[in-house]
Amino acid sequence: MILIGERINGMFTDVKEAIAAKNKQTIQELAKKQTEAGATYLDVNVGTAAADQEGTMQWLVETIQETCSTPLCLDSQKSSVIAAGLKVINAEAGVILNSTPLNKKTDEEILDKYIEMANQAGPKASIITLTMDKNGVPQDIDTRVAIAAEIVQKAMEKGFDTQRLFIDPIVLPVKVPNAQVQAGNILAAMDQIRYLADPTPHMTVGLSNVSQGATERSLINRVFLAMAMSHGLDSAIVDVLDEKLVNVVATAEMLMNKQIYSDSFLKAYVAANKA
Amino acid sequence: MILIGERINGMFTDVKEAIAAKNKQTIQELAKKQTEAGATYLDVNVGTAAADQEGTMQWLVETIQETCSTPLCLDSQKSSVIAAGLKVINAEAGVILNSTPLNKKTDEEILDKYIEMANQAGPKASIITLTMDKNGVPQDIDTRVAIAAEIVQKAMEKGFDTQRLFIDPIVLPVKVPNAQVQAGNILAAMDQIRYLADPTPHMTVGLSNVSQGATERSLINRVFLAMAMSHGLDSAIVDVLDEKLVNVVATAEMLMNKQIYSDSFLKAYVAANKA
Repeated sequence: MILIGERINGMFTDVKEAIAAKNKQTIQELAKKQTEAGATYLDVNVGTAAADQEGTMQWLVETIQETCSTPLCLDSQKSSVIAAGLKVINAEAGVILNSTPLNKKTDEEILDKYIEMANQAGPKASIITLTMDKNGVPQDIDTRVAIAAEIVQKAMEKGFDTQRLFIDPIVLPVKVPNAQVQAGNILAAMDQIRYLADPTPHMTVGLSNVSQGATERSLINRVFLAMAMSHGLDSAIVDVLDEKLVNVVATAEMLMNKQIYSDSFLKAYVAANKA
Repeated sequence: MILIGERINGMFTDVKEAIAAKNKQTIQELAKKQTEAGATYLDVNVGTAAADQEGTMQWLVETIQETCSTPLCLDSQKSSVIAAGLKVINAEAGVILNSTPLNKKTDEEILDKYIEMANQAGPKASIITLTMDKNGVPQDIDTRVAIAAEIVQKAMEKGFDTQRLFIDPIVLPVKVPNAQVQAGNILAAMDQIRYLADPTPHMTVGLSNVSQGATERSLINRVFLAMAMSHGLDSAIVDVLDEKLVNVVATAEMLMNKQIYSDSFLKAYVAANKA
């Protein structure tokens, strides 16, 4: 399971304050703690408060890299912010560009642009592509799958390895009226997306979205993650500091026969991830 | 979710001792506690220690019915023990005959016999049928599905409503060498079994089997149950007194849109089940 640690995000108060005060220590501690907890990548999102988003992204990337070699996942809705991060990143061990829809009303060829950016960043640069197009977020299974198929097709046309794609079917909060049905739809979409190409593209979700505004957030996250892993999800942006969540990941991997059972399978999972 | 409480089973020391001492109180408390916790049915299994299994089954059924009207699930590998229980049961609210394979080397027509017994017990009597035949427990997906199809076909031929079938794809302990792969196989089998008939037969598992002999039993049970519910499982024989497990059931039902989200969805689930 490719776990992308979500905590270095300007939407969290501690990170927002650290950005404002240029306090490296808070950021570096979050980088180290998440790596210790089993993060494969660290998400980096400047949030909305910073005036200079491009400069802030560069400061965050440089700050993290001073202390930690865990690959980064540059997270912004603006391609200019991701591009700024790529200028200062060490992408040898990998980097994820997070994220792009298939296309936008104002920029039809946005995925093409991201493929170009990823290729420039190096052979281990991947892209999170949302099953979303100029019409917005789909509300049904079929449109999600159709957009995913277009994404895969476009990658193949460009000679971009489908294993460098992380397809994100977009999880909506169960608390939002009418959105609850989407949780089941996403699992059904995953059942089809996993067979769109061989080798299969990765699939990822921004897990914490599912419980946004809800009670029992960690429980909802854990249950949805276990379900999704049994439908082919092999990556997620998560609170990797939630030990119960990581234990569910280890258990689900074991039950899906991706890790052998031993009496210490929980510890073995985290140890293997750190190695 | 149809939860079948597993605790009244002579394999547990307290129940074994209560059977030996004809101590009604222990049995009746387990019946009440499991009902309170959200059990739809109470499993009743005399275990292996009792000399007179038929008489013990009748004593257990009568003891439970003195205090509690929750429907029972008569659990024995011997049809004579189930038949004995049926003689004294109040089956108006339902009863489950637990369980029979499709056929046995020594008794080819065993499922026919169970259908007859269920019909005699009344219109709300159901049967747990294992995806198992005279060759034993299948080790692959296809044989599980093929046996399930034969079970459904036989029920249809006999005019036995497929909604009175609980198909059990047989969960094996992950700790047993080579059995770990079966967890994933069972989920894949469920994906097909759910479409064998319309209306679909129920699907159930003896959940605690998956973690037999393992560490982290409750965690393994919870994660596998969440996964299985997203593949169509709508019943399970479980430790309903494990509150964390029931919370996972409530969360999974909410995520699969079988219960609407509210901030008190965990309490609402148990309250609705008791009603």
